[in-house]
This record gives sequence, C-alpha cells and structure tokens, in this order.
Amino acid sequence: MMRTRPLKVALLGCGVVGSEVARIMTTHAGDLAARIGAPVELAGVAVRRPAKVREGIAQELITTDAKALVSRGDIDVVVEVIGGIEPARTLITTAFEHGASVVSANKALLAEDGATLYAAAEKHGRDLYFEAAVAGAIPLIRPLRESLAGDKVNRVLGIVNGTTNFILDKMDTSGAGYSEALDEATALGYAEADPTADVEAFDAAAKAAILAGIAFHTRVRLDDVYREGMTEVTAADFASAKQMGCTIKLLAICERAADGRSVTARVHPAMIPLSHPLASVREAYNAVFVEAEAAGRLMFYGPGAGGSPTASAVLGDLVAVCRNKLAEATGPGESVYTQLPVSPMGEVVTRYHISLDVADKPGVLAHVATVFAEHGVSIDTVRQTGKDGEASLVVVTHRAPDAALSGTVEALRKLDTVRGVASIMRVEGE
Amino acid sequence: MMRTRPLKVALLGCGVVGSEVARIMTTHAGDLAARIGAPVELAGVAVRRPAKVREGIAQELITTDAKALVSRGDIDVVVEVIGGIEPARTLITTAFEHGASVVSANKALLAEDGATLYAAAEKHGRDLYFEAAVAGAIPLIRPLRESLAGDKVNRVLGIVNGTTNFILDKMDTSGAGYSEALDEATALGYAEADPTADVEAFDAAAKAAILAGIAFHTRVRLDDVYREGMTEVTAADFASAKQMGCTIKLLAICERAADGRSVTARVHPAMIPLSHPLASVREAYNAVFVEAEAAGRLMFYGPGAGGSPTASAVLGDLVAVCRNKLAEATGPGESVYTQLPVSPMGEVVTRYHISLDVADKPGVLAHVATVFAEHGVSIDTVRQTGKDGEASLVVVTHRAPDAALSGTVEALRKLDTVRGVASIMRVEGE
Repeated sequence: MMRTRPLKVALLGCGVVGSEVARIMTTHAGDLAARIGAPVELAGVAVRRPAKVREGIAQELITTDAKALVSRGDIDVVVEVIGGIEPARTLITTAFEHGASVVSANKALLAEDGATLYAAAEKHGRDLYFEAAVAGAIPLIRPLRESLAGDKVNRVLGIVNGTTNFILDKMDTSGAGYSEALDEATALGYAEADPTADVEAFDAAAKAAILAGIAFHTRVRLDDVYREGMTEVTAADFASAKQMGCTIKLLAICERAADGRSVTARVHPAMIPLSHPLASVREAYNAVFVEAEAAGRLMFYGPGAGGSPTASAVLGDLVAVCRNKLAEATGPGESVYTQLPVSPMGEVVTRYHISLDVADKPGVLAHVATVFAEHGVSIDTVRQTGKDGEASLVVVTHRAPDAALSGTVEALRKLDTVRGVASIMRVEGE
Repeated sequence: MMRTRPLKVALLGCGVVGSEVARIMTTHAGDLAARIGAPVELAGVAVRRPAKVREGIAQELITTDAKALVSRGDIDVVVEVIGGIEPARTLITTAFEHGASVVSANKALLAEDGATLYAAAEKHGRDLYFEAAVAGAIPLIRPLRESLAGDKVNRVLGIVNGTTNFILDKMDTSGAGYSEALDEATALGYAEADPTADVEAFDAAAKAAILAGIAFHTRVRLDDVYREGMTEVTAADFASAKQMGCTIKLLAICERAADGRSVTARVHPAMIPLSHPLASVREAYNAVFVEAEAAGRLMFYGPGAGGSPTASAVLGDLVAVCRNKLAEATGPGESVYTQLPVSPMGEVVTRYHISLDVADKPGVLAHVATVFAEHGVSIDTVRQTGKDGEASLVVVTHRAPDAALSGTVEALRKLDTVRGVASIMRVEGE
C-alpha cells in the first residue's frame, strides 16, 4: 500500500554531501518510495550561494532563508548537512518546533550540545537520527543504538578520521615525515586547506563523544574527551613502532572502567600491533571495533567520509525517519539512564612507549628504573643503544594509570642523566 | 517515563542460545527495562526435556506445550530458538495470530518459507525480527534492512559459516587434510556430530538466501541458491591457491546482474587473494562485505555463532520489538517490491582455476587452449609442470559465464590428452 501524498524533505546545505543526497533522492525516487511506503519530495534547499548552478535541482527550490524553510510547517523531515554549531542548532530546534524530524550529519554539534537537540526532538515527539555523523557510510550508530541494545558494550576502539589515517598510512609505508604526508593528503583532496580539525583530532574527539554516549547510555560531551592530535608523530616514531612489531594509528577509545562505575573517552596517536585488524586499515578508510559482553568483538569497516558514503548514511536515516512518520512513531531517543560519569585521562589505564636521550654512562638505567618504581609503574621492556657519549633508552611499560605514567615522564625530565624525552606514545590494542 | 506493567516474553527452546537469552534477561533486567521503557518478564519457556535442571529459570515457567504457550494471548514477544521447519513455522504463525511479535534465529525456516512468516506478521500487524539468523552477533540484517535502505546494494560477499571457516583455516595453516581438520573442529566443539549442514553448505546457503532477499528487495528461497560444499577441498588445492597468492574460503555471494534485471545467490569454496580482507578471517569468525552504490565497500566482522553472540543478537531484536510494541508501531516488514528473478548458476560470471592431469607430449596445450576458445572462455594464465611422461596443467581463466566455464571443463574431460581434471575452483574477490 503506497500513500500518494509525498513526504516533504527540506535540505539544509548543498555542498558535497547535500548535492549527493538531492541527486540520489531524484535518481532513486522509486526505490525510496517503495521502501518508505510513500514518495519523498525535495521541498526546499537552503544554501548560502543561491546563484551557483546546481544540476538536477529546480531553481525555485533554492532559498537562502533556512529559518523560513524549516518553519514552513509542512516539512516532514529536515536534512541538516551544513555543519558547525550555529545556525545549525537553531535551525534544528526550530525544525522540531514546526513538526519536522531531523536527519543530521553534524558531529560537532552533536558532541557539543546533543542534549539540546534530543530534548527538542522528544518534546515535539520527533526523530533525531545521525548515522552520517560518525564514520560516514559505516553503520555504527544504528548497530550501537539498536542491534546491541540487549548487550553491554565495554569498549569502542576505532579509526574514525580518514584524513589522519591517510597521513599516518603514508608515513608508515613511504617513510615520509608528517609535513610531506600532509601535503600529499592535501593535494589528493583528503585534507582540507586548514587541516586543524582533522590533525588536531577535534573531529575524531567529537565522534568519540558521540560513540561513548551511545555505547554507555550516558552523556559525553566534546569537553569530556581527552584529545591529542597527531602533528608531532615523526618518522622516528614509526621506526620505533616497527621495532616493536607495531604501527601508529590515531585512535578513538571509549571504555567502561573495570569497576563499571565510570567511563572514559579519548583520542590520541597510539602504537598498535601489526597483527591487530586496525593496523591494516589503509588510506582514508575507517574501522571501529566494538567489544560487548555477549557479542564479543565486532568490527565495522568502510569509507569514513566523502559525499556518496555520507549521503548513503543520510538516506538510510531518511528512510527510517519517514517510515516512523508514517507509522506515527519515533525511533530510539536519547538514552542516558546509566548517568555514568566520565573520568579524566589520568584514570585511564594504558601503556607508554618512552624514548629517552640519556648520558652514556654507568648508572643511568638504575636512575631511570628508580623513577618508574617510585611512581608505581612497572617496566615491560628496555632497549638501550649508545654511541659517542650519547645513548638512547626505549622503555615500554606495563599497564598503569595515565597519571602515574605522565608523572613518571615529568620526573624523568628532571633527571640530570636524562638529556631529553624524545617521544612518548601510548600502546593499545593488545 | 517507565511503564510498570511488564512486557511478557515466551521463549521457545532453551539450549545453548535460549538459556543464554534467559540468563541475560535476568541479570540485565534493569538495563533492558531502561532501554525499552518497560520491564520485560520471562512468561514461559517451552522445552522438550522438562526434567533438565535449568539454573536461574523458575520451574513453573517450564512447559512442554509450546503451542499452548504461544496461544496464551498475553504474550507480547515470542523468541524462537528451536530451529528447523516444523514445529517452528506453526508456532510462529500461531504466535502472530495471538498478537505476539516474533524474534527468531531460525535461518533454515526463513530461507525455506520466510514469505509465510512475513505474511502472518503483516496480517496481524506484528514484527518479525531475525538478526540472529545470519552471522550471530554481527549486525547485518539491520544494517541491510535499515542503514542501507537509502542505497542500492550490488553485492554481498562473505564468510557466514564458522565451522567451515575453522576447518579451512586449519587446512591452510597446518597443511592438514579435510578429515583431519574436521576431526579437530569436532573435538573443539566447532563442528557438530553430524556436520552435514555446515560442510555441505546448507547452513551458508540458507543465510545467502536471507541476505540476497533483503539486499535486493526480492524473494530468494533456499532452492534458488547454488550450493557446493567444501568436503572435496584438498591440501593440494591450498598448495595451488598459495602459488597464486590466494587462500580458500567458503563464500556466500549474492550479486545483482550487470544489467540490473536479475540477481544470483551462491555458496561454494573459492580462492581469494591473500590481500583481500576476507582472507585474514581466521578460526570460526564470520565476516561479510557489502558493496553498495553510494556507500562503497563495507565490512562487518565478528563471532558468527555461539550461545552468547547469538543471544546478543536476539536481545537486540527483543529490545527493538518491545519498543515497537509500546509505540504501537512495527518495524520494516518484507520488502520484495523489485521482484527481481534469481538467475541460475550458469549465468553467474566468475573465473575458474582448473588443474588438469595431462599427457606430457607436444600439442597438449594447443588442444586444451582450443577447447577454451571454442567455449568463448579466455585464458588468463597457464602453468605447466611435468615429469615421467605425466604433466599437470594449471589454467586460470578470465571472467566468463559459469555455464561456459563448466562446459569447457566437460569438454576437457573428453580430450584424449587429458587424463583427468584434478580440481576446479572458482576465483573470487578480485
């Protein structure tokens, strides 16, 4: 049974993702109608530059007045792909006030103030879906919110930023330094002119906040996520990683504490063993491991960005939200019932790989080892190499709270026999 | 807002999966209630052997009369984990008639007669969910039915049977023959006493039918799936595969034809390149590639069987179905609007790796090559080795319709210079 009155969709933003959403809505109109049970119609497209020619989109649908579009009152679903905090937040809440459900790809806004969006959706009995906000086309939000709704997720570990994975992959395979690899990523269109959001891991941190909140049924905001970018990763770090049988990835890690009373969320470069499935995630691909009590270890892999993959995720949500609308129902809303607090980075249990430049004389290792012991950090392996009065000491620790590990490093810096801390990197995935 | 009247769940079957479902419903009752919005209560458990002690399940819940249990009229959700065609089918349709929704893990029934189940669910306005029927805990049905609902899936390629993957992995890594590897799988509990359903690929074929139907929005039954077991794979095949930089996996492959007018579904052993992500799926793990027009290539990986993983999938569905019940809505039903026919195996385009025992004399290759040419099959590579008047010829073809390839093999068998066809295996994943 097909309803003949179409559902009306307003599109906010018509860039790489938005134009692809509009294109597929037109070219696959029949399939979408059959899957929804009613046709969907593009009722308006809000853009900043109305004069730009947009193939396949009727000029009369174009408007610069996004506020008026979402306030029309006859819009069933608003698709928000403009990004950023404002005006996106106001437009989304206005859309809910006027009876629309919302499909968004806006990770920054969801991580910054998801609670406001969820509250507006619930108040007006509408849906807020955002599969496209994390890891592009890879189904991740829906599996976490729905498929694993009967399970207990303990850990989410993943590569959620394609730009930085491309850069790290280039550094790994070609021996290039960071700048050189970034240049290549920029030339190929994988990195933006201003790569800050990617390379300083703001993008990955926003995704970690969203994933942690959903996985642990608690509220996690961007500010709760410990964040370290990957601009200081060097070719020497990759060489060290190789000696350990590892590579380096920028990882988003969300964990439930061992006692179950808190959670942590963090994004930083880390060494992972080459045998770990995440180690072989190449180029701009994304992959996320989910460890759940009953399900065990699951992995989701695919293209994490790009117009078409992101549009696929948006359209999957659009179909779901339209179905809900026809059924006069809503999908899952915010689930924060556990109210688990987010612990600071100092409480995260991890391992450090530390490279020290030290004086090449007897007793240095004893000094260094004493500092570790004083901080309650147990050493796994030490490798010492030296020449011409200078030596380097590579220490890999056992697992310890990050505060103890960083305290150890601070104390090492003060040792007379330690000339400098060449690099510190966490070791994960073992 | 929490509803206080519990939703009532009837469990059909209390074996490895059922007992785990019951256990988690008890131990995680609070989480489930919070996620559903109402408590869930185990209202009855139908078993064959009522005398067996079942820890954590009150004796008064146990019944041998499954029919009476699903007909009670106060059951909200029936969880069917008994498997097989009957009595499962009658119990499920009876459950729908009495107002229950159904969560099933029954791949055989869904592949044999899913249409009857869907029709009963739709008639009574209830849900039929079955994430656990394919690939255990790996979210696959929901991503295909919902996440990719706005996309066009062109191919599903995966390892969907853990038992056979375990056996093939052992053969690959240890050089063991099939019988030896099967014995090990049996000893470790990965293979059943009668391994027929697994090793003859009935299990994988049922899953392929389910996946193809959902992926292509058409009806695909078990009989539509071309099926070859893996009992004839030999250590020599693995040696041949290695020479090609490949390994051997039992693959389920569902494809949309190039012209888009039909689909195919098949399960058979195949060589795949070691560089393909499926090549590194070890032991009893499952992994499925999905290729969609906009999303690109996605991979889903995890434990494909076992009590806990399967229970995780069942409980995820239970939460979804209970939420729908509270919202007086239903999730997606059968989607077969494309009505694409399933083409026979002969029309599948694939590649063959053929090992021939031939007479070691001049002109043999010319004879053989002529047969390929006569069938319109183009040769990619030929490798000839010979000693003592006997020779072996390994031919790898380019892509051609399976009918042309199998016709070629039949004609080769009739050549005087061909002593025998030592093995034939398809090559996939390139």
